[in-house]
Amino acid sequence: MDNTLFTVNNVWMMICTALVFLMHLGFSLLEIGLTRQKNTINILFKNVFIISIGMVLYAVVGFNLMYPGTFMYGVLPDYFIDLFGIAPPENGLTAEYANGGYTYWTDFLFQGMFAATAATIVSGAVAERIKLGSFMIFTIIYVGVVYPITGSWKWGLGWLDELGFYDFAGSTLVHSVGGWAALVAVWLLGARIGKFNKDGSVGAIPGHNIPLATAGVFILWLGWFGFNGGSVLSADPGKTSMVLVTTCLAAAAGGLTAFLVSLFKYKQYDLSMFLNGILGGLVGITAGADIMSVTDAVIIGSIAGTLIVLGVAFLDKLKLDDPVGAIAVHLICGIWGTLAVGIFGDLAGWEQLGNQAIGIISIGAFCITSAYLIIKTLKVTVGIRVSELEEQEGLDIHEHGMDAYPDFGLNEH
Amino acid sequence: MDNTLFTVNNVWMMICTALVFLMHLGFSLLEIGLTRQKNTINILFKNVFIISIGMVLYAVVGFNLMYPGTFMYGVLPDYFIDLFGIAPPENGLTAEYANGGYTYWTDFLFQGMFAATAATIVSGAVAERIKLGSFMIFTIIYVGVVYPITGSWKWGLGWLDELGFYDFAGSTLVHSVGGWAALVAVWLLGARIGKFNKDGSVGAIPGHNIPLATAGVFILWLGWFGFNGGSVLSADPGKTSMVLVTTCLAAAAGGLTAFLVSLFKYKQYDLSMFLNGILGGLVGITAGADIMSVTDAVIIGSIAGTLIVLGVAFLDKLKLDDPVGAIAVHLICGIWGTLAVGIFGDLAGWEQLGNQAIGIISIGAFCITSAYLIIKTLKVTVGIRVSELEEQEGLDIHEHGMDAYPDFGLNEH
Amino acid sequence: MDNTLFTVNNVWMMICTALVFLMHLGFSLLEIGLTRQKNTINILFKNVFIISIGMVLYAVVGFNLMYPGTFMYGVLPDYFIDLFGIAPPENGLTAEYANGGYTYWTDFLFQGMFAATAATIVSGAVAERIKLGSFMIFTIIYVGVVYPITGSWKWGLGWLDELGFYDFAGSTLVHSVGGWAALVAVWLLGARIGKFNKDGSVGAIPGHNIPLATAGVFILWLGWFGFNGGSVLSADPGKTSMVLVTTCLAAAAGGLTAFLVSLFKYKQYDLSMFLNGILGGLVGITAGADIMSVTDAVIIGSIAGTLIVLGVAFLDKLKLDDPVGAIAVHLICGIWGTLAVGIFGDLAGWEQLGNQAIGIISIGAFCITSAYLIIKTLKVTVGIRVSELEEQEGLDIHEHGMDAYPDFGLNEH
Repeated sequence: MDNTLFTVNNVWMMICTALVFLMHLGFSLLEIGLTRQKNTINILFKNVFIISIGMVLYAVVGFNLMYPGTFMYGVLPDYFIDLFGIAPPENGLTAEYANGGYTYWTDFLFQGMFAATAATIVSGAVAERIKLGSFMIFTIIYVGVVYPITGSWKWGLGWLDELGFYDFAGSTLVHSVGGWAALVAVWLLGARIGKFNKDGSVGAIPGHNIPLATAGVFILWLGWFGFNGGSVLSADPGKTSMVLVTTCLAAAAGGLTAFLVSLFKYKQYDLSMFLNGILGGLVGITAGADIMSVTDAVIIGSIAGTLIVLGVAFLDKLKLDDPVGAIAVHLICGIWGTLAVGIFGDLAGWEQLGNQAIGIISIGAFCITSAYLIIKTLKVTVGIRVSELEEQEGLDIHEHGMDAYPDFGLNEH
Repeated sequence: MDNTLFTVNNVWMMICTALVFLMHLGFSLLEIGLTRQKNTINILFKNVFIISIGMVLYAVVGFNLMYPGTFMYGVLPDYFIDLFGIAPPENGLTAEYANGGYTYWTDFLFQGMFAATAATIVSGAVAERIKLGSFMIFTIIYVGVVYPITGSWKWGLGWLDELGFYDFAGSTLVHSVGGWAALVAVWLLGARIGKFNKDGSVGAIPGHNIPLATAGVFILWLGWFGFNGGSVLSADPGKTSMVLVTTCLAAAAGGLTAFLVSLFKYKQYDLSMFLNGILGGLVGITAGADIMSVTDAVIIGSIAGTLIVLGVAFLDKLKLDDPVGAIAVHLICGIWGTLAVGIFGDLAGWEQLGNQAIGIISIGAFCITSAYLIIKTLKVTVGIRVSELEEQEGLDIHEHGMDAYPDFGLNEH
Repeated sequence: MDNTLFTVNNVWMMICTALVFLMHLGFSLLEIGLTRQKNTINILFKNVFIISIGMVLYAVVGFNLMYPGTFMYGVLPDYFIDLFGIAPPENGLTAEYANGGYTYWTDFLFQGMFAATAATIVSGAVAERIKLGSFMIFTIIYVGVVYPITGSWKWGLGWLDELGFYDFAGSTLVHSVGGWAALVAVWLLGARIGKFNKDGSVGAIPGHNIPLATAGVFILWLGWFGFNGGSVLSADPGKTSMVLVTTCLAAAAGGLTAFLVSLFKYKQYDLSMFLNGILGGLVGITAGADIMSVTDAVIIGSIAGTLIVLGVAFLDKLKLDDPVGAIAVHLICGIWGTLAVGIFGDLAGWEQLGNQAIGIISIGAFCITSAYLIIKTLKVTVGIRVSELEEQEGLDIHEHGMDAYPDFGLNEH
């Protein structure tokens, strides 16, 4: 390949990497905005921990585990001999690597940013009641081992890839992988005090900073330019720009639909639903962003937006307490987006739909099992839930000795 | 054209598109920061609505209306046959399209982001008292139809383009188009309760979150890298980088001048004026960012910064209540920037100045008329202003049943 | 050089410029978040002032002073003849300029963004007690003259460059230059009221908005993609992507280590330490980001993270009051990162270590002397510290007549 084209491709991929990195800010703001003030420091801590440990873990374990055989350090013993020894293969910085789409280093960094995302998804669902230490242990195992294993099945050219399962940028491989763990964790943790009352009513536990939550969604949407745009794995003009169009239209359609459905259902202009609808549209289009027409994208996004409104209500019925709506966004819309590949776009067909279902089920089974084993083990050993006192007074003061807005006061001039 | 160069151009244009997208976060933060807490959710809702509906509308109507004949779906009946059916022309993903500057998809997305901006400008000016439903109807018509029509006169190679009117990135086509509607809307809406007192004094209605407003301005400045840098419509190294330099220097000069003029006039180091001065400088340079020298840019920015301080005071005198200063920034500096093309830089001259004036006047007349017809019709039918009670208690609780910071409390440790 | 490759390089460099610009938002948020509410407007004002005046100054003075002889306007009298007259040399927009890495305009803008950064670093350290006017005068001289002079010694190919001193992206040339001035300023200013008590105890003065501080760190980390990635001065795929990997891993390692060390030392999950550890890791890797292995980067970052925790405690012992930890981050880790070039990576060796020490000492001596002369002169003339009353009531109300959250109230529904 032309060396200049290789340089362009790599520039695009580095930018996409930066945008996916920024999603961690988006998730942080979204999560703290939709939860209570007394747990803000705790959530921020979890998020900076995830991106930091995620990147180190991906260097030590994940990258090689996910793309076995492709790289120099693909054999286990090497890890122990040469810790942190990731190094490019001979052609890793040339256009011969990865079809000239990017260098080995960009590959590592882009994929590492994705890996960390899976844990971030869980973070929101378990907010306001999980023990920090247990969450950190869970993160290390899930990001370090579980995510790369399911990733290897498809993106590492494993058995799901051979089968014909299609997941362009990770509706299943990233979002559902996070979503399944969120589901298991929420189930094992139980609801926050005050969420589900004995009389069957559902208590509203409002967040503390909706402007920051909204900023988080804008930043996540921006991040998706890189998440989906970068999943082309080159700067191919037609493909990348088409992916951005389907991504943005699905987001817009998801938001608008969630707003309209919730207006119809609850007679309110509900900003939270609009925001989660946008995210649902984004997750929904992720599996097939490169093979959908504009009309397909709008339909997929609209259905995702509808699923958000129904999903949030459905989870409440199941008495599953997900403070930020992560399960509806990432799991339900992740499943929907993956199935949509068999229904709309270039690959639509019964066989494809079957393959999509196999992918969803097999990855779901693996994730549920893994998450259950990790979290259950933590539960029966060190415990996963903070004390009632700590939950009521807030995790910030108990685990961090710190408030989120310690010097904040009201203007009295 | 070299296929690799086409790829580079398209990468640059996609990044610029992403940056213009991010401007919607900038506008959101600026608008909520400068207004009262009780209307925050409402403003955020308007902003996520605008970007979402703007993009869908641009797919269904705007793109084809603005660039008639260029694309496959330029004939009206097609819309109804093939709703959302935008599809690239045969060469739309090749270097033959648009001089190899970008693909059809990038073209659509970049232009769509611009279209949504026009409505966002209005959003700030009408904040804290407009009915949400009426604003949404206005947005749909203005973004869907009015903006593309005036856009077609110049960027669609219509009569203003033939005349020799020059507007590089939209001091008039975007900012004044939004600004004129803001002016009409503010006039028809009337001032907020408490702004202009019976004794002739002007009541200060301070905003609720200046840090977020400041963050908004930084983000808008960043967005202008894409707004102006992308308006080169390719990655041409000399042109794009020169545009970034004139843009940044005009912004800096605008901010510094507004700060100094307001220091002289009011004996205060006024942060709001500094911020609006930056925005004024950015709007001012937008019409001629590609044809100005460094010195020109600094002068244009400085005059824009001065106009901001004087303009805000002048609007107060006219009893026009614009909570965020949108009219001063986007309309006054938009006009100034458009005229500046006839005074400074490569095209300076009386004939050009005349053409600039014709553009300003004709687009102004069309926008005023359209905005008046739309908003007046809404006013006499469904109404455009919320009830006095709603205005006093806040739009958040009445239209959205939600506070912006519901769980916020003061630290009592 | 291939004209297309030149275009790619320039695109990458423009993006990096935009990212470095965004660092000014990151610094703003970090600084206000870690300080008290009553001084927020003041800090924001300083930050928008710095980026604005910094860019204008770099056009008028800095660029030519730092890269003498390279450009048309390198001779002093020209400044007065042709104020703001920066203009590209004949080949400035072609691939012949700067090895085809970027255009003259991109060069100016990228370097100008760096220059402004040095003053921003000082801003945090002197927060909550410095007179605004004096700080502005200091900034003008320091950014306009001192920074470009030390910059010219190395990046302007001056004597330190000839000696063999190595500083890839400015651990010393940017961060320590800012850090030394911060140290001198903090010393001459004295501590804030209430920081160091007569009984020897250290009073905690908590900040007012930790979420914004955290957002600031995420944005700074993102900005470092451009700060270090752009310092390659081209889009060379292998080098740029490797730099991003070492940068991110050092940041991650710095944060994790600071968290662990502070957990061990203080038995708390300390978010502030985690955040400053990330920044310390970033500053630490900056001098050698292009010559370190992955393992080196992790070690350098880890040591930087440790230095943050120890450094903050050490400065407290010296009764030096740095509200945001700028001296620990930028000076201590800047020195460490510069020395690390002689210890790790491709250039490691005693001779290199000696050269690094000479660079640190000579630049330190020049910066300390310059900063002392400027600030001491200001101290004995116009004064540098606000009155006790002003410090206690807040700079916002006294210097700006404005609160940061004037309309903020608690929800009482």
